[in-house]
Amino acid sequence: MPAGSRAAWDNKLVSRARELEQRLERTEQQLRLLQKISRLLVREVKLEEALHDVVSLVVEFMECDSCLLYLLDNRELVLCASNNPQPATVGRVKLALNEGLTGWVAREKRLLAISREAYHDSRFKFFSDLPEDTYEAFLSAPIISRRGVEGVINVQHRDPHPHSGIEMELLTSVGEHVGCLLMLSQLEGKANEGPDLVLSTGGERVAGS
Amino acid sequence: MPAGSRAAWDNKLVSRARELEQRLERTEQQLRLLQKISRLLVREVKLEEALHDVVSLVVEFMECDSCLLYLLDNRELVLCASNNPQPATVGRVKLALNEGLTGWVAREKRLLAISREAYHDSRFKFFSDLPEDTYEAFLSAPIISRRGVEGVINVQHRDPHPHSGIEMELLTSVGEHVGCLLMLSQLEGKANEGPDLVLSTGGERVAGS
Repeated sequence: MPAGSRAAWDNKLVSRARELEQRLERTEQQLRLLQKISRLLVREVKLEEALHDVVSLVVEFMECDSCLLYLLDNRELVLCASNNPQPATVGRVKLALNEGLTGWVAREKRLLAISREAYHDSRFKFFSDLPEDTYEAFLSAPIISRRGVEGVINVQHRDPHPHSGIEMELLTSVGEHVGCLLMLSQLEGKANEGPDLVLSTGGERVAGS
Repeated sequence: MPAGSRAAWDNKLVSRARELEQRLERTEQQLRLLQKISRLLVREVKLEEALHDVVSLVVEFMECDSCLLYLLDNRELVLCASNNPQPATVGRVKLALNEGLTGWVAREKRLLAISREAYHDSRFKFFSDLPEDTYEAFLSAPIISRRGVEGVINVQHRDPHPHSGIEMELLTSVGEHVGCLLMLSQLEGKANEGPDLVLSTGGERVAGS
């Protein structure tokens, strides 16, 4: 083989190995995320704490800029956990089922992935107090349990981000795991205080009142 | 670079890429296993059917020769699901908590991995009707829920098999997911019929009697 072709062949091999290394690292991260959430299923933790842990884990392992978790309460979606240190929004931001991309996901029980300019989508709803409103990429999955839709979990990137099939399936599984957490919390007799418990972290009861 | 060194370098790159491809494929399989089990958590399925599905999925995605699932009933571990088409053993094979490797795992609430000659382990217990008794490699995890130990899940290979850290963590997570399935089934008011439901498939009630 001439030296030039050989060098090109070597470069191709090196970049193939590098690409595989990156994909392996990402897949291992995704596996670890489900394993960490799985641990929350068997630990005696308060629902509020578990939801906060899920949001932190998603941000860490999916390398996104924001994760917001909404729970359905009296046909409204109420923001119950956020990785963003703006506690005033938790329990206060709420959406009707016919509002926003989040409402669409809960209504349709379907995953939604927008890789750029999510804010230009006609279904978008702006909140003046959520910095995530300016983010480019939006991935959203319903939180589902055996009872049906329980809420929505959103993952956002500031910059455009094409979502891989694995990322989409992963967030779907996270939504299922959170649905399971909600049912387990009900089993522990905490169901009735559940939503209030979460919402009260904003310092004010907004749902069901 | 001399031609010989160059060829050696190329071979090294090629085998590195091949190794990464295999690891990526295995990790993707493991991720898919947890995602499939996660789906069982949110679907309305009978416990017996869900346990059978878990065993089939583990055999398919962990590429092992056997998967046996024991549930704790009155301080006995009763075989409740097996990938091996010997239905006569399901519900009949049972172990006290101080018997066998399986009893050790339930008692200690710890993962156990033996890569070869598992049958030479002093804790081993033989059943004349279980072909898995002659298998070399043994990986076993407790089935755990928020209530504590609920059973044990065993993965076996006919030939010696060194278990990777990822495989060990994976079976730990599967054990946690099964624990969650058991709690959800209780939530649906099926708890009391649960063990009997499973055991009755052997045509005879053996536990609690």
